[in-house]
Amino acid sequence: MGSFNGGAKTLPRLILVRHGQSQWNLENRFTGWWDVDLTEKGEAEAKAAGALLAAKGLLPTVAFTSLQTRAIRTLHLALEAAGRVWIPETKDWHLNERHYGGLTGLDKAQTAAKHGEDQVRIWRRSFDIPPPPQEAGSEFDLAADVRYAGIAIPNTESLKDTIARVLPYYESAIVPQLQAGETVIIAAHGNSLRALVKHLSGISDDEITGLEIPTGQPIVYELDQGMAATDRYYLSEC
Amino acid sequence: MGSFNGGAKTLPRLILVRHGQSQWNLENRFTGWWDVDLTEKGEAEAKAAGALLAAKGLLPTVAFTSLQTRAIRTLHLALEAAGRVWIPETKDWHLNERHYGGLTGLDKAQTAAKHGEDQVRIWRRSFDIPPPPQEAGSEFDLAADVRYAGIAIPNTESLKDTIARVLPYYESAIVPQLQAGETVIIAAHGNSLRALVKHLSGISDDEITGLEIPTGQPIVYELDQGMAATDRYYLSEC
Repeated sequence: MGSFNGGAKTLPRLILVRHGQSQWNLENRFTGWWDVDLTEKGEAEAKAAGALLAAKGLLPTVAFTSLQTRAIRTLHLALEAAGRVWIPETKDWHLNERHYGGLTGLDKAQTAAKHGEDQVRIWRRSFDIPPPPQEAGSEFDLAADVRYAGIAIPNTESLKDTIARVLPYYESAIVPQLQAGETVIIAAHGNSLRALVKHLSGISDDEITGLEIPTGQPIVYELDQGMAATDRYYLSEC
Repeated sequence: MGSFNGGAKTLPRLILVRHGQSQWNLENRFTGWWDVDLTEKGEAEAKAAGALLAAKGLLPTVAFTSLQTRAIRTLHLALEAAGRVWIPETKDWHLNERHYGGLTGLDKAQTAAKHGEDQVRIWRRSFDIPPPPQEAGSEFDLAADVRYAGIAIPNTESLKDTIARVLPYYESAIVPQLQAGETVIIAAHGNSLRALVKHLSGISDDEITGLEIPTGQPIVYELDQGMAATDRYYLSEC
């Protein structure tokens, strides 16, 4: 993959974008690996993120995203708005959202009514306790989804489990691009991006579960050659 | 790159899609390598092509496109409509449109008035006579476009020149995917697709210049393991 920054080499820069509103965000349902598309509002958030990148001169040169439509379309809409739809992009399941196990597809309010709010809070906010596993053959089982052919699909994940597959992928696939001086954009999900923010900002296990990654608002990390963050900022309209 | 067809291996299949109407198609201007976006009609053509692929069960597993927005967006819109936006995609300049040299940006009617219709027909329809070269520093010079950093951008191309860069790329990058049993989709341009159709259908130098590739209408090639076409058909609504 060639360098596309086409100018003076800069220090590595990483741009994180969480996908905007999806249909199930709107319906308040646990989504995880289920493939739900963006709403019109989510599309608008993605375009605004790309327009902001262009306005600030933060132009990505290499892109990564998950295998999930809402993140991929966020990437495409943002890159279109930034005039950068032509940069190389890699889609990989390691950047997928946390797998919500047996909660996938359930309405969050109904789940709280059934299991109690405390239990749901534990599943959502614990670092290492996964939700109950998804049953094989359930309505939202992904075993027949060809995009995951050959991949050992988890049947549930804690945030810790999610981090354990995001970080090795970051180190092996994304860091080499950063080391080559690329400006990398990652369009992904609340929990796969938490994994990266935890790593880059040195956030503790306890604190990371309460950190909300904003949707459609780029987070920019300036890195040194050792891949340590020298600066982090949210990009937003003044 | 893994196999995504996730089922029984089939014989290789290649799907060609020419981008739909662009702004300069609408304005009747020579476009070539200049990066012009789709019109709303062009977007609709792309979505219809993808819906047709899904309706016929012709689901791509690997995608290739050019570095030009109108082809990339055609690919994305078609894949979205087919539910396949998650397949791996590669963007490469070898699949770009023929470079129209000094004609780039000119209105076709004005060009005919200036140079004569016969001369314009020669430039458009000759196999091996390129238009006059684009002058460095002209309004449509791409030397400063970072997407082509490190690439020896041509300053004009005949169809023969275009074929001479499309086919080696096809052989080295796309044929291995076909040999692995993938269903490959290529979203590209009138002349880069002519190169492939000429090769796969064995069309003569004289005949290929008059062959119009329809926009937004998938052309499907069924291939044998030796990469020879056993069948070719246009996909269209009955």
